[in-house]
Amino acid sequence: MRRFDAGGESFRWDAVPVLDYKSDAAAPFRDITRQTLFKRDDMQGELRYFEVAAGGHSTLERHEHTHAVLVLRGLGACLVGTAVHRIGAYDLVTVPPRTWHQFRAAANAPLGFLCMVDAARDRPELPDARALQTLQSIPDVAAFLAGDMS
Amino acid sequence: MRRFDAGGESFRWDAVPVLDYKSDAAAPFRDITRQTLFKRDDMQGELRYFEVAAGGHSTLERHEHTHAVLVLRGLGACLVGTAVHRIGAYDLVTVPPRTWHQFRAAANAPLGFLCMVDAARDRPELPDARALQTLQSIPDVAAFLAGDMS
Repeated sequence: MRRFDAGGESFRWDAVPVLDYKSDAAAPFRDITRQTLFKRDDMQGELRYFEVAAGGHSTLERHEHTHAVLVLRGLGACLVGTAVHRIGAYDLVTVPPRTWHQFRAAANAPLGFLCMVDAARDRPELPDARALQTLQSIPDVAAFLAGDMS
Repeated sequence: MRRFDAGGESFRWDAVPVLDYKSDAAAPFRDITRQTLFKRDDMQGELRYFEVAAGGHSTLERHEHTHAVLVLRGLGACLVGTAVHRIGAYDLVTVPPRTWHQFRAAANAPLGFLCMVDAARDRPELPDARALQTLQSIPDVAAFLAGDMS
Protein backbone atom coordinates (compact mmCIF):
# COMPACT_ATOMS: atom_id res chain seq x y z
CA MET A 1 0.00 0.00 0.00
CA ARG A 2 1.24 3.47 -0.81
CA ARG A 3 -0.15 6.49 1.03
CA PHE A 4 -1.25 9.66 -0.64
CA ASP A 5 1.00 12.48 0.52
CA ALA A 6 -1.46 15.18 1.50
CA GLY A 7 1.20 17.68 2.51
CA GLY A 8 2.04 19.39 -0.76
CA GLU A 9 0.37 21.58 -3.31
CA SER A 10 0.75 18.94 -6.03
CA PHE A 11 -0.54 15.39 -5.80
CA ARG A 12 2.19 13.02 -4.59
CA TRP A 13 2.36 9.47 -3.24
CA ASP A 14 4.88 7.75 -0.97
CA ALA A 15 7.55 5.95 -2.97
CA VAL A 16 6.14 7.09 -6.32
CA PRO A 17 8.82 9.14 -8.12
CA VAL A 18 7.77 12.35 -9.87
CA LEU A 19 9.18 12.02 -13.37
CA ASP A 20 9.72 14.26 -16.34
CA TYR A 21 6.68 14.00 -18.55
CA LYS A 22 8.87 12.94 -21.49
CA SER A 23 12.53 12.44 -22.11
CA ASP A 24 12.11 13.34 -25.78
CA ALA A 25 13.14 16.98 -26.07
CA ALA A 26 11.66 17.19 -29.57
CA ALA A 27 8.10 16.74 -28.31
CA PRO A 28 6.69 20.12 -27.26
CA PHE A 29 5.04 20.24 -23.83
CA ARG A 30 5.02 22.57 -20.84
CA ASP A 31 4.81 22.29 -17.05
CA ILE A 32 3.68 18.70 -16.72
CA THR A 33 4.85 15.82 -14.54
CA ARG A 34 4.24 12.07 -14.68
CA GLN A 35 3.85 9.54 -11.86
CA THR A 36 3.39 5.85 -12.55
CA LEU A 37 0.91 4.61 -9.95
CA PHE A 38 0.54 1.01 -11.14
CA LYS A 39 2.81 -0.87 -13.54
CA ARG A 40 3.31 -4.55 -12.84
CA ASP A 41 4.50 -7.59 -14.75
CA ASP A 42 1.27 -9.40 -13.83
CA MET A 43 -1.04 -6.67 -15.20
CA GLN A 44 -1.75 -5.76 -18.81
CA GLY A 45 -2.81 -2.21 -17.99
CA GLU A 46 -0.86 0.67 -16.46
CA LEU A 47 -2.21 3.60 -14.49
CA ARG A 48 -0.33 6.91 -14.56
CA TYR A 49 -1.06 10.30 -12.98
CA PHE A 50 -0.21 13.44 -14.94
CA GLU A 51 -0.28 16.88 -13.43
CA VAL A 52 -0.27 19.92 -15.67
CA ALA A 53 0.49 23.19 -13.89
CA ALA A 54 -1.68 26.25 -14.60
CA GLY A 55 -1.01 27.35 -18.17
CA GLY A 56 0.79 24.12 -19.09
CA HIS A 57 -0.04 21.42 -21.60
CA SER A 58 0.80 17.91 -22.79
CA THR A 59 2.24 17.13 -26.22
CA LEU A 60 -0.08 17.26 -29.23
CA GLU A 61 0.25 13.71 -30.58
CA ARG A 62 -1.44 10.52 -31.70
CA HIS A 63 -0.73 6.78 -31.59
CA GLU A 64 -2.34 3.38 -32.06
CA HIS A 65 -3.02 2.81 -28.38
CA THR A 66 -6.05 4.13 -26.54
CA HIS A 67 -6.03 6.49 -23.56
CA ALA A 68 -8.65 6.14 -20.82
CA VAL A 69 -8.56 9.34 -18.77
CA LEU A 70 -10.25 10.27 -15.48
CA VAL A 71 -9.66 13.82 -14.24
CA LEU A 72 -8.70 13.83 -10.57
CA ARG A 73 -8.55 17.55 -9.90
CA GLY A 74 -8.42 21.01 -11.34
CA LEU A 75 -9.71 22.51 -14.54
CA GLY A 76 -8.73 22.56 -18.16
CA ALA A 77 -9.60 21.44 -21.63
CA CYS A 78 -8.69 18.66 -23.98
CA LEU A 79 -8.56 18.23 -27.72
CA VAL A 80 -9.71 14.82 -28.98
CA GLY A 81 -9.70 14.62 -32.76
CA THR A 82 -11.26 17.92 -33.77
CA ALA A 83 -13.40 18.38 -30.63
CA VAL A 84 -12.45 20.59 -27.69
CA HIS A 85 -13.95 19.69 -24.30
CA ARG A 86 -13.80 21.68 -21.08
CA ILE A 87 -12.97 19.22 -18.30
CA GLY A 88 -13.04 19.16 -14.52
CA ALA A 89 -12.83 16.73 -11.64
CA TYR A 90 -13.96 13.16 -12.35
CA ASP A 91 -14.84 13.74 -16.01
CA LEU A 92 -13.99 10.77 -18.25
CA VAL A 93 -12.24 11.11 -21.61
CA THR A 94 -11.51 8.35 -24.11
CA VAL A 95 -8.84 9.02 -26.73
CA PRO A 96 -9.37 6.40 -29.46
CA PRO A 97 -6.56 5.01 -31.65
CA ARG A 98 -4.83 7.38 -34.13
CA THR A 99 -6.61 10.46 -32.77
CA TRP A 100 -4.79 13.77 -32.27
CA HIS A 101 -5.06 14.84 -28.65
CA GLN A 102 -3.71 17.32 -26.14
CA PHE A 103 -4.53 18.25 -22.51
CA ARG A 104 -4.26 21.83 -21.26
CA ALA A 105 -4.65 23.22 -17.73
CA ALA A 106 -6.64 26.40 -17.19
CA ALA A 107 -4.65 29.64 -16.86
CA ASN A 108 -5.28 29.78 -13.12
CA ALA A 109 -5.66 26.13 -12.05
CA PRO A 110 -3.71 22.89 -12.43
CA LEU A 111 -5.14 19.87 -14.21
CA GLY A 112 -4.44 16.46 -12.69
CA PHE A 113 -5.62 13.32 -14.42
CA LEU A 114 -5.28 9.56 -14.35
CA CYS A 115 -4.54 7.84 -17.64
CA MET A 116 -4.93 4.08 -18.14
CA VAL A 117 -3.02 2.55 -21.06
CA ASP A 118 -1.98 -0.91 -22.18
CA ALA A 119 1.50 -1.83 -20.96
CA ALA A 120 2.33 -2.96 -24.52
CA ARG A 121 1.87 0.12 -26.68
CA ASP A 122 3.32 2.04 -29.61
CA ARG A 123 5.23 5.31 -29.54
CA PRO A 124 3.45 8.61 -30.20
CA GLU A 125 3.62 10.44 -33.51
CA LEU A 126 3.87 14.24 -33.75
CA PRO A 127 1.88 16.24 -36.31
CA ASP A 128 3.78 17.39 -39.41
CA ALA A 129 3.18 20.87 -40.85
CA ARG A 130 0.31 19.65 -42.99
CA ALA A 131 -1.52 17.91 -40.13
CA LEU A 132 -1.03 20.98 -37.95
CA GLN A 133 -2.41 23.24 -40.69
CA THR A 134 -5.49 21.03 -41.02
CA LEU A 135 -6.11 21.20 -37.26
CA GLN A 136 -5.55 24.96 -37.17
CA SER A 137 -8.08 25.50 -39.95
CA ILE A 138 -10.78 24.69 -37.38
CA PRO A 139 -11.39 27.86 -35.30
CA ASP A 140 -12.11 26.09 -31.97
CA VAL A 141 -9.05 23.91 -32.38
CA ALA A 142 -6.86 26.85 -33.38
CA ALA A 143 -7.95 28.75 -30.27
CA PHE A 144 -7.26 25.71 -28.09
CA LEU A 145 -3.80 25.16 -29.58
CA ALA A 146 -3.00 28.85 -29.07
CA GLY A 147 -3.79 28.41 -25.37
CA ASP A 148 -6.98 30.42 -25.47
CA MET A 149 -8.91 28.80 -22.62
CA SER A 150 -11.68 31.39 -22.40
CA MET B 1 -16.40 12.11 -23.16
CA ARG B 2 -18.65 11.40 -20.21
CA ARG B 3 -19.32 14.05 -17.61
CA PHE B 4 -19.18 13.49 -13.90
CA ASP B 5 -22.65 14.01 -12.46
CA ALA B 6 -22.02 16.30 -9.51
CA GLY B 7 -25.64 16.45 -8.47
CA GLY B 8 -26.02 13.42 -6.24
CA GLU B 9 -24.69 12.17 -2.95
CA SER B 10 -23.01 9.19 -4.62
CA PHE B 11 -20.50 9.42 -7.45
CA ARG B 12 -22.22 9.02 -10.84
CA TRP B 13 -21.31 9.63 -14.47
CA ASP B 14 -23.46 10.36 -17.52
CA ALA B 15 -24.34 7.18 -19.40
CA VAL B 16 -22.52 4.93 -16.92
CA PRO B 17 -25.05 2.51 -15.41
CA VAL B 18 -24.93 1.84 -11.67
CA LEU B 19 -24.84 -1.94 -11.38
CA ASP B 20 -25.26 -4.50 -8.68
CA TYR B 21 -21.86 -5.25 -7.23
CA LYS B 22 -22.33 -8.96 -8.01
CA SER B 23 -25.01 -11.11 -9.50
CA ASP B 24 -23.84 -14.11 -7.46
CA ALA B 25 -26.15 -14.25 -4.45
CA ALA B 26 -23.83 -16.75 -2.73
CA ALA B 27 -21.04 -14.18 -2.34
CA PRO B 28 -21.60 -12.16 0.85
CA PHE B 29 -21.37 -8.38 0.47
CA ARG B 30 -23.29 -5.35 1.70
CA ASP B 31 -24.22 -1.90 0.38
CA ILE B 32 -21.88 -1.66 -2.58
CA THR B 33 -22.37 -0.62 -6.20
CA ARG B 34 -20.23 -1.04 -9.33
CA GLN B 35 -19.78 1.29 -12.32
CA THR B 36 -17.60 0.32 -15.26
CA LEU B 37 -15.84 3.51 -16.34
CA PHE B 38 -13.62 2.08 -19.09
CA LYS B 39 -13.99 -1.31 -20.80
CA ARG B 40 -13.09 -1.42 -24.48
CA ASP B 41 -12.21 -4.08 -27.02
CA ASP B 42 -9.01 -2.17 -27.86
CA MET B 43 -7.75 -2.04 -24.25
CA GLN B 44 -6.36 -4.85 -22.13
CA GLY B 45 -7.22 -3.17 -18.84
CA GLU B 46 -10.56 -2.18 -17.35
CA LEU B 47 -11.29 0.59 -14.86
CA ARG B 48 -14.24 0.24 -12.50
CA TYR B 49 -15.55 2.44 -9.69
CA PHE B 50 -16.94 0.80 -6.58
CA GLU B 51 -18.82 2.68 -3.92
CA VAL B 52 -19.37 1.11 -0.52
CA ALA B 53 -21.96 2.87 1.62
CA ALA B 54 -21.17 3.58 5.29
CA GLY B 55 -21.03 0.27 7.14
CA GLY B 56 -20.90 -1.76 3.93
CA HIS B 57 -18.26 -4.09 2.53
CA SER B 58 -17.12 -6.01 -0.53
CA THR B 59 -16.89 -9.79 -0.66
CA LEU B 60 -13.99 -11.49 1.10
CA GLU B 61 -12.35 -13.37 -1.80
CA ARG B 62 -9.20 -14.15 -3.76
CA HIS B 63 -8.27 -14.88 -7.37
CA GLU B 64 -5.33 -15.14 -9.77
CA HIS B 65 -5.72 -11.65 -11.16
CA THR B 66 -4.31 -8.54 -9.53
CA HIS B 67 -6.28 -5.52 -8.32
CA ALA B 68 -4.82 -2.01 -8.60
CA VAL B 69 -6.91 0.25 -6.37
CA LEU B 70 -6.94 4.04 -5.96
CA VAL B 71 -9.33 5.42 -3.35
CA LEU B 72 -11.35 8.32 -4.75
CA ARG B 73 -13.25 9.39 -1.67
CA GLY B 74 -14.35 8.58 1.83
CA LEU B 75 -12.83 6.45 4.55
CA GLY B 76 -12.50 2.80 5.35
CA ALA B 77 -10.15 -0.10 5.68
CA CYS B 78 -9.00 -3.01 3.59
CA LEU B 79 -7.70 -6.47 4.28
CA VAL B 80 -4.90 -7.60 1.97
CA GLY B 81 -3.58 -11.02 2.91
CA THR B 82 -3.29 -10.81 6.69
CA ALA B 83 -2.72 -7.03 6.87
CA VAL B 84 -5.41 -4.47 7.66
CA HIS B 85 -4.85 -0.93 6.31
CA ARG B 86 -6.87 2.21 7.09
CA ILE B 87 -7.46 3.96 3.78
CA GLY B 88 -8.62 7.37 2.62
CA ALA B 89 -8.72 9.52 -0.49
CA TYR B 90 -6.03 8.81 -3.12
CA ASP B 91 -4.31 6.00 -1.20
CA LEU B 92 -3.07 3.19 -3.48
CA VAL B 93 -3.60 -0.51 -2.73
CA THR B 94 -2.25 -3.45 -4.71
CA VAL B 95 -3.94 -6.82 -4.17
CA PRO B 96 -1.49 -9.43 -5.53
CA PRO B 97 -2.59 -12.77 -7.04
CA ARG B 98 -4.24 -15.35 -4.74
CA THR B 99 -4.46 -12.95 -1.81
CA TRP B 100 -7.54 -12.77 0.42
CA HIS B 101 -8.95 -9.24 0.37
CA GLN B 102 -11.95 -7.20 1.42
CA PHE B 103 -12.83 -3.49 1.43
CA ARG B 104 -14.98 -1.94 4.18
CA ALA B 105 -16.36 1.58 4.49
CA ALA B 106 -16.19 3.37 7.82
CA ALA B 107 -19.33 3.30 9.98
CA ASN B 108 -20.09 6.95 9.20
CA ALA B 109 -18.58 7.52 5.71
CA PRO B 110 -18.77 5.89 2.31
CA LEU B 111 -15.71 4.45 0.60
CA GLY B 112 -15.38 5.02 -3.14
CA PHE B 113 -12.48 3.50 -5.06
CA LEU B 114 -11.23 2.87 -8.57
CA CYS B 115 -10.06 -0.65 -9.38
CA MET B 116 -7.99 -1.48 -12.46
CA VAL B 117 -8.02 -5.12 -13.57
CA ASP B 118 -7.09 -7.07 -16.69
CA ALA B 119 -10.05 -7.55 -19.01
CA ALA B 120 -9.13 -11.26 -19.23
CA ARG B 121 -9.31 -12.53 -15.66
CA ASP B 122 -10.38 -15.50 -13.56
CA ARG B 123 -13.38 -15.74 -11.26
CA PRO B 124 -13.05 -15.11 -7.52
CA GLU B 125 -12.87 -17.89 -4.95
CA LEU B 126 -14.61 -17.62 -1.55
CA PRO B 127 -12.91 -18.83 1.65
CA ASP B 128 -13.99 -22.21 3.00
CA ALA B 129 -14.49 -22.74 6.74
CA ARG B 130 -10.84 -23.65 7.25
CA ALA B 131 -9.50 -20.57 5.41
CA LEU B 132 -11.89 -18.36 7.36
CA GLN B 133 -10.78 -19.92 10.64
CA THR B 134 -7.14 -19.24 9.76
CA LEU B 135 -7.91 -15.59 9.01
CA GLN B 136 -9.98 -15.20 12.16
CA SER B 137 -7.16 -16.56 14.29
CA ILE B 138 -5.36 -13.23 13.69
CA PRO B 139 -6.85 -10.65 16.12
CA ASP B 140 -6.59 -7.63 13.76
CA VAL B 141 -8.14 -9.60 10.93
CA ALA B 142 -10.89 -10.99 13.15
CA ALA B 143 -11.79 -7.46 14.27
CA PHE B 144 -11.81 -6.22 10.65
CA LEU B 145 -14.02 -9.09 9.50
CA ALA B 146 -16.41 -8.44 12.38
CA GLY B 147 -16.77 -4.86 11.14
CA ASP B 148 -14.88 -3.31 14.02
CA MET B 149 -13.47 -0.18 12.33
CA SER B 150 -12.30 1.53 15.49
